[in-house]
Amino acid sequence: MQVTDIEWSETEQAVASAAFDKAYNREIQALVADIRSKVNDLNAVEDLWQLHDLLSIRRHSLDGKYDSRTSALLFVFAQLLQEELLSLDDLAGLSPAKLKKISALTRM
Amino acid sequence: MQVTDIEWSETEQAVASAAFDKAYNREIQALVADIRSKVNDLNAVEDLWQLHDLLSIRRHSLDGKYDSRTSALLFVFAQLLQEELLSLDDLAGLSPAKLKKISALTRM
Repeated sequence: MQVTDIEWSETEQAVASAAFDKAYNREIQALVADIRSKVNDLNAVEDLWQLHDLLSIRRHSLDGKYDSRTSALLFVFAQLLQEELLSLDDLAGLSPAKLKKISALTRM
Repeated sequence: MQVTDIEWSETEQAVASAAFDKAYNREIQALVADIRSKVNDLNAVEDLWQLHDLLSIRRHSLDGKYDSRTSALLFVFAQLLQEELLSLDDLAGLSPAKLKKISALTRM
């Protein structure tokens, strides 16, 4: 299945951009809440370095995951659906062909 | 000035260990307070990554600074005196020769 060289209409680009931002902001807000909770119990040096490790891992993971190149978007959306950070409703407005490809990718 | 191959009596080792821990704990507690204050204002993703950068820099700096090998201790104490994380009172019990060397290092 060739999924990387697909045309995106302006409407589709707007839908994709909004969905991308929605999922990203959800993850960031969840991470902020997690950091706040960990900082409440922060005391020893081990807690500090655990906090640092968590931020290192999540930053690396988020950088890799939120690839905004159009060639990557179908894969990104498939992953976000799998992780329940988006629902198909968030992608309403994409062409049936794209939605079919995204759905296929979620089953791989 | 040769400062790396000096004998440390048991008493001196105990004084050094207590002073080392005192300064280290002071730095960690100050860092914990700094992190807590930054987390209060944590909201956007930029704040998260600034927090991560701060922890990366401080962890690297602390790892390098608190070198507990006896060959490094005079240098470590000189730096801690310069940074006012220790006073000469905290080093009471070290031999006059060691204190003289530490004082000389603080002026370098």
